[in-house]
Amino acid sequence: MSEAARRVLERADELAGFTEEPGRITRPLGTPALAGATARVADWMREAGLQPASDALGNLVGRRGEGERLLMGSHLDSVANAGRYDGVLGVLVAIEVAAATQIPLDVVAFADEEGLRHGLTFLGSRAFVGQLLPEEAAMCGIEPGPPLFDGAKAYFEVHIEQGPVLEALDRPLGVVTAIAGQSRFRLTFTGRAGHAGTTPMDLRRDALVAAAEFVLAAERVALAEPGLVATVGTLAVPEGAVNVIPGQVELSLDIRHADDAVRARGIEKLRRHRARPGIDALWQQIHAHDATPCSPELAERLAEAVGPGAHRLPSGAGHDAVTMAGFTDIALLFVRCAGGVSHHPDEAVTEADVAAAIEAATRFACST
Amino acid sequence: MSEAARRVLERADELAGFTEEPGRITRPLGTPALAGATARVADWMREAGLQPASDALGNLVGRRGEGERLLMGSHLDSVANAGRYDGVLGVLVAIEVAAATQIPLDVVAFADEEGLRHGLTFLGSRAFVGQLLPEEAAMCGIEPGPPLFDGAKAYFEVHIEQGPVLEALDRPLGVVTAIAGQSRFRLTFTGRAGHAGTTPMDLRRDALVAAAEFVLAAERVALAEPGLVATVGTLAVPEGAVNVIPGQVELSLDIRHADDAVRARGIEKLRRHRARPGIDALWQQIHAHDATPCSPELAERLAEAVGPGAHRLPSGAGHDAVTMAGFTDIALLFVRCAGGVSHHPDEAVTEADVAAAIEAATRFACST
Repeated sequence: MSEAARRVLERADELAGFTEEPGRITRPLGTPALAGATARVADWMREAGLQPASDALGNLVGRRGEGERLLMGSHLDSVANAGRYDGVLGVLVAIEVAAATQIPLDVVAFADEEGLRHGLTFLGSRAFVGQLLPEEAAMCGIEPGPPLFDGAKAYFEVHIEQGPVLEALDRPLGVVTAIAGQSRFRLTFTGRAGHAGTTPMDLRRDALVAAAEFVLAAERVALAEPGLVATVGTLAVPEGAVNVIPGQVELSLDIRHADDAVRARGIEKLRRHRARPGIDALWQQIHAHDATPCSPELAERLAEAVGPGAHRLPSGAGHDAVTMAGFTDIALLFVRCAGGVSHHPDEAVTEADVAAAIEAATRFACST
Repeated sequence: MSEAARRVLERADELAGFTEEPGRITRPLGTPALAGATARVADWMREAGLQPASDALGNLVGRRGEGERLLMGSHLDSVANAGRYDGVLGVLVAIEVAAATQIPLDVVAFADEEGLRHGLTFLGSRAFVGQLLPEEAAMCGIEPGPPLFDGAKAYFEVHIEQGPVLEALDRPLGVVTAIAGQSRFRLTFTGRAGHAGTTPMDLRRDALVAAAEFVLAAERVALAEPGLVATVGTLAVPEGAVNVIPGQVELSLDIRHADDAVRARGIEKLRRHRARPGIDALWQQIHAHDATPCSPELAERLAEAVGPGAHRLPSGAGHDAVTMAGFTDIALLFVRCAGGVSHHPDEAVTEADVAAAIEAATRFACST
């Protein structure tokens, strides 16, 4: 298997060369960089005994066999200044599974998961299953034909973890139980601006102090529920100056959990967090989606393929599997990545971990 | 006195018409707007029996009498989108004192206190006393001649409070004890950026959470020392995104007190505030000046002029009196302003309060 893992790493290096920005990996939908990478992947599919086909958006599927088959894959597009494994690893591991076996199998390489080009995620998988909206197709400049997807026994994706859990546990692989549901809010705290020198502390209505209390409340609420994550990722003082008491603060809240009820409870606790007197807090929901459970049966079988004591964990990030879950059972295998770093040139996996992933994925595919 | 107060308000309205931005009051150094306002003030000085003279920067002084005289005044320049009383009120009240009396008196109208034009404060008063640096004179495009200032018994300034204390106490006037010393810092909190969905709460090094703790610590430390004010006026997450754990946060700290030892103690307490493990906090001092005490004798006499139970308070904002304190004793009288609002079109004073200020200032000037 080590030869296969080495090949995966070499191919990931080669695909890193397909970029719109020399010196960095930036490979959005609808670019020569993505077309070049996709063509190269089609070559490797043929070598692995798969028959490639593509659609108007640029999705690529390599097919072998008749009837309902297992579908494996991930995406080939990237964020700006990306690493070389997010998405790519899942496509390359699937090709190794095809090469190492004779099982009926489809391998898909989605053309857009990150949404870098149009700011809309999952365009690739949604086009693949025929779910692209007419205005989305128009935006992409395509006339969608019949979808490439024609059913599957299951969808199975291998992906880097993009988090630090497996590394902290010293495990190469993890079996995903569910893809977390997510809510995003924009909060505006409004107090009263004032002169930093002339307004005594007890006469202030400082929006930033109230926002700071909220930031800490978000952490506290998340720490109180196992698995809940809450993040204030942006915070701005729009009219801020060193000598002015902040009158208004805007911040974002991102809150996720694999169990929708736990997420709802966390949001409810934070909504009950009262800003101090004199401060108004306005909530606006800007995004929400429910959790996507992985198939418990498939997860069980994937855990067997990984081996004794396989670690199970939720995925805090979205993946192509979210779209595919609307059409078939899904399974998702995480591969440890260095420092949990992703969406960054430092993204890294080890050859041994990739070898373990290929081995487990092959066992799982053969059992499905 | 009410006629005098009405005249002051009318003249403030007239001066508001001298602006570089139609519809807003914006009157920086070295502009036609300031020159026009200054010329009008020179007319009023003559009417009040003062002999006007000006310098290369645009400072204006109106003189009456020989030998060491009391010097009264304030500034005519403004911030951008200013109110109509900050600075202007002190000049106009001084002219009323001149008009109502025959005492030897100089009235000064400084051409730059706010620093809007060049980002350096007190250029007017510093040019007035001959303290402009050669590079500052060059920046202003002037050849400074001999300074207008030729000594004074004392410098006395009337100014709107620019804070909410007098309004909260229901007092029209306040006697300033000292102009607060001030320190400003830029702080950088550095943790580690991470994926908001995939990084469990206990594996995070969130720079914004650490910064929020600091914001609250600054408030706590200030509340613990009477008169201390500490403000985090700006806070930014430079690489912030809704789905990224903040890796770095920059914020400003402004801390002031009339007693330098109290300010130093507050800074020391905040420097001892330890950011949570995994977060580095870097402090950079960007500004500091010591407190400027007002003359206790003059303050005593000013309190007598104000009347029984005159309220005494420090000034949290800087004023031209800071420069003048290097050359003569200073006294500073605050006038209540609506809501403590300043540096804003809503800046407002009542005719009755202005009348009280003219009365107290006249009594004080006659006793000095």
